[in-house]
Amino acid sequence: MSELDTIRLLSSPAEMREEMERARRSGRKIGFVPTMGFFHEGHLQLMRKAKADCGLCVVSIFVNPIQFGPSEDFAAYPRDLESDLKLAASAGVDYVFHPEPDDMYGPHFQTSVKAGKLSENFCGASRPGHFDGVCTVVAKLFNIVTPDNAYFGMKDYQQLVVIERMAADLNFHVRVIRCETAREKDGLAMSSRNCYLSAKERSIAPRFHEALNQMKMELGIIKNDKNSFSLSGFLANYSIKLKSGGFDSVDYLKVADASTLEEISDSSSLSRASGIFIAGAVYLGRTRLIDNVVFDL
Amino acid sequence: MSELDTIRLLSSPAEMREEMERARRSGRKIGFVPTMGFFHEGHLQLMRKAKADCGLCVVSIFVNPIQFGPSEDFAAYPRDLESDLKLAASAGVDYVFHPEPDDMYGPHFQTSVKAGKLSENFCGASRPGHFDGVCTVVAKLFNIVTPDNAYFGMKDYQQLVVIERMAADLNFHVRVIRCETAREKDGLAMSSRNCYLSAKERSIAPRFHEALNQMKMELGIIKNDKNSFSLSGFLANYSIKLKSGGFDSVDYLKVADASTLEEISDSSSLSRASGIFIAGAVYLGRTRLIDNVVFDL
Repeated sequence: MSELDTIRLLSSPAEMREEMERARRSGRKIGFVPTMGFFHEGHLQLMRKAKADCGLCVVSIFVNPIQFGPSEDFAAYPRDLESDLKLAASAGVDYVFHPEPDDMYGPHFQTSVKAGKLSENFCGASRPGHFDGVCTVVAKLFNIVTPDNAYFGMKDYQQLVVIERMAADLNFHVRVIRCETAREKDGLAMSSRNCYLSAKERSIAPRFHEALNQMKMELGIIKNDKNSFSLSGFLANYSIKLKSGGFDSVDYLKVADASTLEEISDSSSLSRASGIFIAGAVYLGRTRLIDNVVFDL
Repeated sequence: MSELDTIRLLSSPAEMREEMERARRSGRKIGFVPTMGFFHEGHLQLMRKAKADCGLCVVSIFVNPIQFGPSEDFAAYPRDLESDLKLAASAGVDYVFHPEPDDMYGPHFQTSVKAGKLSENFCGASRPGHFDGVCTVVAKLFNIVTPDNAYFGMKDYQQLVVIERMAADLNFHVRVIRCETAREKDGLAMSSRNCYLSAKERSIAPRFHEALNQMKMELGIIKNDKNSFSLSGFLANYSIKLKSGGFDSVDYLKVADASTLEEISDSSSLSRASGIFIAGAVYLGRTRLIDNVVFDL
């Protein structure tokens, strides 16, 4: 029996829910990793952690149409179910839930979950409605899978914070587990969208994380000398550096409080922040890359 | 031991959820009646049915601030916990969940459930945001109480349909049970807000349901002779009747498809409707009364 024989692939929300009820009745704990598929090592780390923590690991693969804007890459988003199933099996996954859009959004679908102010800045400002689409599908998946724990990577840090908030606000009984961003050896944050990059673009891409790390170091150095420091100048300077480093444009580059995601615009508010979140989105050709660093100052 | 000793009163969502997990683990089925308290016979009928169907009956009493508009009666809404607990005990209720607003909406609360087009007409048009507030609190209560069945009265028919849609759209694993409107002997739909009525107003109030019943009969009679029938004239005529019958104003009076809640504005679309919903909201002094009839033509 190969690993693939042990994995259960389901597409019906009702069947998935029934399976989970059965698992729960037999005393099992459910670890859940919601994904859009096209797995890389980052996804697999989440799955291994879910499996180790809970014993039962459920992964959803669903490219969720309602979190993409009309001009975004929903149709082009990379998909490879066969490879994903092999990788999931190698990570010890028990169930893959892979619904079709019609299974999730019937003809009368009309109720949505609306994220609040945590969703408004950063990627939310560039992608209106994106986080409402994410919250809606994650709420649905939570109700279908009924997980004890759900695992999210910190590469999508704003998404993680928005989902933690949603889970608390709507009283979902699930622990949201933060997991470190998985990176290539050269520091590039792993992403399914990295497959869009040409060889040339791929060689430029790691400079994004390098810049974020330099920004973190620089903020650490100036923390005792804030008066002479201009945060807007600092950000503008790194934007220019990124563009001269080969990125086509900078969608945003911002410093914020890591809990509230409230933007920090002057150096005096740096010290009041409970933690620091530096986040950016940059374009390399048509590809939009996001990355961040989260740290205590 | 009096009945009151057997009822458990809880205010903490976490404790409530734990109690329900315990009940579920011991194999019990949970019937749930969400309310704003100030019980009348209509509430008690829902409780008795929940108890009979499920064995365990949970009632929530929560005057939900986010479903009231700024000029509405949130502060004045009638409350009487002591009487409610006695009545609930007499109906066989096992748990009363009675949180404070702060238990439900902490300082960082910001995620909401947004109802769709079913919520836009009728009471939704007069009370912007009302059904989003209802859906948000009911989603929270479903996650806290984890009911098998949830019971709603048909007096708030639009609310019932909106919640059925929400439960399906967000994959809540709960059966929403429709229950007939409880009425006084003279036909007035029972409502906690009826306590606002003066003796004079109370004597006028039953004419609302009388008018709805007449409208139902009249639509039944004309169903074979639709061509000569003007639906807008029909509605205007009944609006005038209500006002000359003593009501101060008619907020709305409409005929719709009972499933889609799409308004029926001409007589030819009457025959295409899967069921008929005639609904109205009228003012008697400062009191807003709603009522409806739902039937097959």
